Amino acid sequence: MKRERVQIELGDRSYPILIGQDLLTDADLIASSVEARSVLIVTNTTVGPLYAGRLKQSLKDRRVAELALPDGEQHKTLESIGRIIDALVDARMNRDAAVIALGGGVIGDMAGFAAACYQRGIDYIQVPTTLLSQVDSSVGGKTGVNHPKAKNMIGAFHQPRCVIADTSTLSTLSDREYRAGIAEVVKYGLIYDRPFFDWLESNADAFAAREPTAVIYAVRRSCEIKARIVAADEREHGIRALLNLGHTFGHAIETASGYGNWLHGEAVAAGMVMAADMSSRLGWLSAQDRDRATRLLTAFGLSTVPPRIGATEALGLMGMDKKVLDGRVRLVLLREIGNAEVVGDYPKAALDATLQHHFG
Amino acid sequence: MKRERVQIELGDRSYPILIGQDLLTDADLIASSVEARSVLIVTNTTVGPLYAGRLKQSLKDRRVAELALPDGEQHKTLESIGRIIDALVDARMNRDAAVIALGGGVIGDMAGFAAACYQRGIDYIQVPTTLLSQVDSSVGGKTGVNHPKAKNMIGAFHQPRCVIADTSTLSTLSDREYRAGIAEVVKYGLIYDRPFFDWLESNADAFAAREPTAVIYAVRRSCEIKARIVAADEREHGIRALLNLGHTFGHAIETASGYGNWLHGEAVAAGMVMAADMSSRLGWLSAQDRDRATRLLTAFGLSTVPPRIGATEALGLMGMDKKVLDGRVRLVLLREIGNAEVVGDYPKAALDATLQHHFG
Repeated sequence: MKRERVQIELGDRSYPILIGQDLLTDADLIASSVEARSVLIVTNTTVGPLYAGRLKQSLKDRRVAELALPDGEQHKTLESIGRIIDALVDARMNRDAAVIALGGGVIGDMAGFAAACYQRGIDYIQVPTTLLSQVDSSVGGKTGVNHPKAKNMIGAFHQPRCVIADTSTLSTLSDREYRAGIAEVVKYGLIYDRPFFDWLESNADAFAAREPTAVIYAVRRSCEIKARIVAADEREHGIRALLNLGHTFGHAIETASGYGNWLHGEAVAAGMVMAADMSSRLGWLSAQDRDRATRLLTAFGLSTVPPRIGATEALGLMGMDKKVLDGRVRLVLLREIGNAEVVGDYPKAALDATLQHHFG
Repeated sequence: MKRERVQIELGDRSYPILIGQDLLTDADLIASSVEARSVLIVTNTTVGPLYAGRLKQSLKDRRVAELALPDGEQHKTLESIGRIIDALVDARMNRDAAVIALGGGVIGDMAGFAAACYQRGIDYIQVPTTLLSQVDSSVGGKTGVNHPKAKNMIGAFHQPRCVIADTSTLSTLSDREYRAGIAEVVKYGLIYDRPFFDWLESNADAFAAREPTAVIYAVRRSCEIKARIVAADEREHGIRALLNLGHTFGHAIETASGYGNWLHGEAVAAGMVMAADMSSRLGWLSAQDRDRATRLLTAFGLSTVPPRIGATEALGLMGMDKKVLDGRVRLVLLREIGNAEVVGDYPKAALDATLQHHFG
């Protein structure tokens, strides 16, 4: 099976993403990817039992400690960071040790943030085991945890030394989590790459069925697109905000429902439908493109209908979102499939109509 | 009274240190130093009642929130970072808000780290109110908190936008804390600047008596020296380690006695005497220079005798120190007053003799 490699170009913080089947059992690949002689594997109690064993076997001559945190977004807290730091201190890890994040985005965010903070920064390596984390959190260097009142409020920019995206780990993912990852893949087509969106339409069945060739291509293309956007704007001052398509609406959904009741990708899918709806109300996006977006998400089994939390409630929740400048909610809207823009000065009426229509 | 300004040159993260009497009540200076329209003042319950009022008055048209944490190094924890983040969220502070650290090094370290983490990094401004923090923690960008098992294990590099060192706030400092700050000032003379050491000898009485002209000069010169060293080595890979003169020995003292029983500066003073002793045993430092160092510290009322914790215990405590590479304790030693070196390959016997002599 073909393996892919996407190089993330960030000067002296550049790193590769390796994508393919059965990477974790490839001891040579692991040996050449992990420089540190001492590592702490941070995982959770779901993923650890499945994959920590084969990773450890491939790490053979390293000094390895392991920490399995409870599974779930509700544990993405400062307290968990304290537990990771405790494990690093207990294992007497030095500045030249590395943290390996084995799990989904939650584990990657926490392990990366702990690595950023431990002794003011040690290396970390991501081994994302969900589709969402393979296509999203493995690129960009964002790490962090949630605050009880707001997502991702606490964190750091810290680039991994290397990402090992073993697509065979996706076989143990639930259908629901796999679908949630697909939402972010569709996003890359919508914001940046119409031919990729076309490819997703044509290969929806194979991709949904997790056929390795389709998965590897989708992961590679997603990472390439995200990498191109992030490289142009590492600290998120400009076009990187395009990656937030559907996220501002989505955050309102996630927050109103309580973290974890809507998976992040599910909320983003519904949020992208809302962004498409608003874009079309503004006369930016054709009805045809809007409907193609909704149809593709539906074809992948994603819900395009947010909960009826009420427009006012939703607006309040969006107001605490990080993507606010001077009290004005900036949104990512679509000109057409493959072409998005960050907008701050849209007519308030279009936003209200979209909120009313979807949130009630 | 003359005011001084030391510019810290770090490319796009450059910032000024303003030094002088009565800066906090100078509304024009505060207005021009604080860009943000919304600020959270982080202080402690000792300093807040003394100086938060005049700072707030000078901030007049800003939106100001305040958080007073309990006083003391034992509160320099991840939990306190959680409290600062809570306060930022509760006050609905955005990415363009700033944190103002009003207090000593503990407050500066915590407020700076919280600012580094909040929304992955917002501005912060330091208003150091102790001699130690004016000469030490206001330069270098190190922020962070302690782990129960090791000091400063958790943190980030985050440069302030500006440091306002109002030397009139030193009037409320206890003699003990003022003396502890002097230890770090002496350190700058020892590692980098023999003429400054001479000046300290000649002006010991005025400086000890907190005469403003002497204090302003000592703070300025200390900041200049630290700035020069930090600018050459921002991420602490090389000569910045010189700033750790006395710190590795000092950390053993602090840790063995429990945080807070020996003030940081007190431990550093005793640690510098040990470093001078070891340097002299190696034939590096003349007996005359060694004795001048001890005499000046004693003249300022600093103890040069560490607690009898035992050489073996001390060595273990130094082994957990961050300044370890490959299990070998690197030390800062003196060639002469004004000239220090970081050394990894010293004869172990000299270290043992020094530990035995001082720790018993």
